[in-house]
Formats: sequence, C-alpha cells, structure tokens
Amino acid sequence: MRLITIDDIEAAAVRVAGRAVRTPLVPSLWAPEDRPLWLKPEQLQPIGAFKLRGAVNAIARIPDDVREKGVVAYSSGNHAQAVAYTAKLYGVPATIVVTTNTPQVKIDATARHGAKVVVVPPADRESAAEEIVATQGGTMVPPFDHPDVIAGQGTIGLEIAADLPDVEVVLVPVSGGGLISGIATAIRAKAPNAKVIGVEPELAGDTAEGFRLGRRPDWSTDDRARTIADGLRSTPSELTFAHITKLVDDVVTVTEDQIRDAIAVLAVRSQQVAEPSGAVTTAAYLHADLPRGRTVALVSGGNIDPALLAEVLTRQQV
Amino acid sequence: MRLITIDDIEAAAVRVAGRAVRTPLVPSLWAPEDRPLWLKPEQLQPIGAFKLRGAVNAIARIPDDVREKGVVAYSSGNHAQAVAYTAKLYGVPATIVVTTNTPQVKIDATARHGAKVVVVPPADRESAAEEIVATQGGTMVPPFDHPDVIAGQGTIGLEIAADLPDVEVVLVPVSGGGLISGIATAIRAKAPNAKVIGVEPELAGDTAEGFRLGRRPDWSTDDRARTIADGLRSTPSELTFAHITKLVDDVVTVTEDQIRDAIAVLAVRSQQVAEPSGAVTTAAYLHADLPRGRTVALVSGGNIDPALLAEVLTRQQV
Repeated sequence: MRLITIDDIEAAAVRVAGRAVRTPLVPSLWAPEDRPLWLKPEQLQPIGAFKLRGAVNAIARIPDDVREKGVVAYSSGNHAQAVAYTAKLYGVPATIVVTTNTPQVKIDATARHGAKVVVVPPADRESAAEEIVATQGGTMVPPFDHPDVIAGQGTIGLEIAADLPDVEVVLVPVSGGGLISGIATAIRAKAPNAKVIGVEPELAGDTAEGFRLGRRPDWSTDDRARTIADGLRSTPSELTFAHITKLVDDVVTVTEDQIRDAIAVLAVRSQQVAEPSGAVTTAAYLHADLPRGRTVALVSGGNIDPALLAEVLTRQQV
Repeated sequence: MRLITIDDIEAAAVRVAGRAVRTPLVPSLWAPEDRPLWLKPEQLQPIGAFKLRGAVNAIARIPDDVREKGVVAYSSGNHAQAVAYTAKLYGVPATIVVTTNTPQVKIDATARHGAKVVVVPPADRESAAEEIVATQGGTMVPPFDHPDVIAGQGTIGLEIAADLPDVEVVLVPVSGGGLISGIATAIRAKAPNAKVIGVEPELAGDTAEGFRLGRRPDWSTDDRARTIADGLRSTPSELTFAHITKLVDDVVTVTEDQIRDAIAVLAVRSQQVAEPSGAVTTAAYLHADLPRGRTVALVSGGNIDPALLAEVLTRQQV
C-alpha cells in the first residue's frame, strides 16, 4: 500500500494557502513551565474545523473538466460543510447526502453554502451518494479514506514544524485517522524527534485498542457512538491504519468527564471554543500518561452545541 | 504634538515578532455576502488580549541598563498581565499596582507571571505607582498614553493591511484610545482607502461624544464604569485624542444588550471567546449604521467571566 509522502503534503500546502486560514500556535500560559503547551486552533477555519484543508486539496486535485460536474459527499458533520464551502469557492455544484437523524441546524449550515442536501435513512447513506455519482456524475470526496484528503490535513503538521521546530510531543484527535496520518507524515519528515500521539475518547477507543493489538479495530458503530465527541465516532480505513501503525508513537484515551473539563479549560483559560472532539487533546495533556516536553495540542474544531458549552462553564471550576 | 508614524509601527513590528502571536484574519461565513466580515482574534495572545503588543514594544525600547531595574504599571486588567508577562520574557522584575476592589482572580493571574502585586485604595493607584518608581527605581509602562505603547498596538493595523489590502472598513474598540491611534496610523499608511471606525459602549460613549463635538471628553469615572465592557472604561489622553481627531473616520456606540448578543454570536457562530470589550466591534457590525464594504472587526480580548459567557449562551438565540 502506498502511503502519502511529505512531497504530497508540500504540494497540498500550495493549494490550501489562501483558502484555509494559516492558524498560529498559541502558547498556553496555564501549562506548567517544565511542560510547555501550545494550542493549534483549527476551530478558526471558516467552517469551524480543520476538515477544510483536506476538502480543498482533494477538490483542487480534480481535473477542471471533471470538477465542473460537481462534487458529492456523505457526512452530517464538519466534512459536509467543508465540501460544500470548498465547492462554492471553486464555483462548482455540491451534493451532500445526510441522514434522517441529522439535526436541522447542520442541514441548514450545509445548505447555506449553496449545496444541495439529500436526506436518506442512515443505512442508505453511502449507497445513495454512490448512486448520485453513477447517475448524475460528479466526484465523491470521502471524509478521510483518500490520499488527497490525508495530504491536505497534513498541512497542519507542516505548520507546526515550521512554527516550533523543536516540538517534542504532538497530540492529535483520532477518528477515521486521516488527520493523524497526514500530520504524522509531516512531523516525521520535518521534526523527526517529536512523538506523534493520537487521542480518542475511551468510549470510541477502537484505534487505541487496535494500535496495541497490531490489527485494524472492528468496534460496532453503536459502540463508537456512545461518546459525546461526535466527530470521533469513525474507525480507521486500511489506508489510514497503515499510516498510524507505521508513523504514530502511541494512541491514548480520555474519559467523557475529562473532555467536558477540557472544553471549560479551553474556553476560560485559553479563550478558545472547542467542540468535544476538539478538546480531547487538551484532556489528554491534562490527564493522560504522556511523554514530557514541548507539546502541541491540536484543537480540531469548535462547532459545539451552545447548551453544552454553557453547561460545562457552569459545572466546572477551572 | 508629535503623532506616531508608520515608521514607529514598522519598528515596533520587529520587536513584537515572536513575542506576540501573529493572529490571522478569520472569514465570517455568517456575514451577508454583500458585506463580508473578517475577525482579527487578538484574544489568542498568550495573556488573552492585544495589550501584549504595546507592552512588548514599550519594554523593548527601554535601554538595557534601565530595564533591568524593573518596570511598574497600575492596572487591574489586561495591561497588568501584559506588563507582568513581558517583564518575565525579558527577565526583569515587575511591580503592578492594583486596587482594593480588584478581583482576587485578576491579582492571581498577574502574580502567576512572577510580578509583585501592590494593593492600594482606588484613589491612590497612580500616586502609589509613581512613588514606587521614585523610591525604588524602575520604568513606568502606561496603559495607553505613550508613543511606544501606541506603536505596539499599531502592529495590528499593519497585519490587517498585509492580509487584506483591499479592506474598506476597520472596526476598533475605543477606551483610552491607544489601540485605535496605532491602528489608524497603520491603516492610513497601508490601506488609505479604508475607513477606521471606533466603537464604544453607549454607557461609556465619551469619545463618540467628544469626536462629534471636536473636543476631548470629560465624562466622570462613575459614568464610564456603568458598562459591562470593563476594558472600555478609560478616556482618551491628549495624545490619543489628537490621533483620533486626525485619523479616525467616526466613533459609534452599541448598547449593553448588543454587546451580550455579540458575545454569543462570536462563541456560537465564530468559535471565539470574546470578553464584552472584545465583542463591541461585532455588535457594531450587526447593529450600528456603518459604511458598507469589506469589513474587519477587531476582537480585542477574551478574558470573560465564565458565568457571563454561560449566561449569554443560555439567554440568546443565535
């Protein structure tokens, strides 16, 4: 299996520049001095999450005459918005397949970018998207299982290495594994002494288990859906698991309470709005058994239910 | 009176680089297409507010042999933390004078940077700081009434013009006026077609009134203290009011409810934590009568009481 390379990511960086926000590293003054922490605030991307980078790289790579026939994606989350927004940037039509249990607020957010939204029962999601491609044309943009998507997310790793060349620990949320596959490729090439550590909710800790056992995990969808971190309920593909096995140093887990606590810490002490999936790395910094050293925690997104944010702010003492 | 120049700001930018975060401009997808909006998230500075820029430039400019005797400031807010943090960066002692009504949490935040905190009655704040300088040595770093502080804040304007050269409207919070004096100087030089508009809470709208009447305002401290925006309760000095009169296009005001509403919009739709003072520009974008065009709203800081953030998230529909 061909893994992506640092050349793929450097080419992606050229395509992503000016379309995604070049996010800074933000020093966290509340971290102890012997274990300095920087946050990488990807919730500042226009759609509120890192997913824009992969979508831009994948859609930019489609030949012009094919791209103008449109793009198709199945997702109810940040990837849907990323594809819809990027299609609008390129002036091409987008069709997003969502399921009957998708909240109306997410459907509205996707439709606001001008995408056509098709609603189907959960079991038909993938097949419906494939049928749209077969009958109407257009190119499918998968959420993580694609080299161009992985390379786009990897641009985050390039930026981390450029801004903090002596980084020692990079903490990355893990779901389908596209994000950490790209970042680990970049960090291995540009900051080879740094450890890349994946973070999952304990309730969706399939990759942590698979990493330990040395084989791709097979947790059920229902099991993975128990976590509050709704962006971390996917499972690695063969392609992403191959990257993780080869390039990642460890995968750790955090509890639901630790995630809630980290959301409050990020809001109150770092002035950052993180969704549960975006807060797992800070939760790991605070609670997991990790290597010491100059640490970067990736805040992957900030699309949180306002009621949940209000609740953790009221409940927690930070 | 000598106003600061673009050369002062460009020199400040060299001193500020690597000490303050280079914040990006973040496109706001919720803004109408005929009036695009970018946010400049200065709450991402390590101390949670833009004040770091002015403090760095002022402290960097002190000759080495003088600086090592220490710096002194009187402030209970973001300037206190900015001076304390910058002194630590330079390895020099800092003494911060706060008042007996300063919340313990702000005293703790300042002390955490290693500063010595002196608590005095409110009326003695300035004289106590001057006495410290007179008896113990050290250099006073004023919060806004100083060319080096103004030039440091002006680096924000340089960055806005570099990232969005065809910006048409720049919205800036106004309190003592150091921030808008610096930004207006930079924008006049680098994006001369843009209008620079100050924003105040109506309840501390002294500069808006003074701007209209053509003379420096003289509202009482009690009047200015009525607003929830605790960072916007100062009044311009002769130096800053001279910059405002010459370089600023207008000063508008927003209500307390509009400020609360903007805090919720920023958190829910832009994934940004803003304190009331940092949300006034978004409030003005949403509610004030402003020129149309490509607009930048400066989010000046994010040090908000968690209970207030929870309250606006619960109360508002955004």
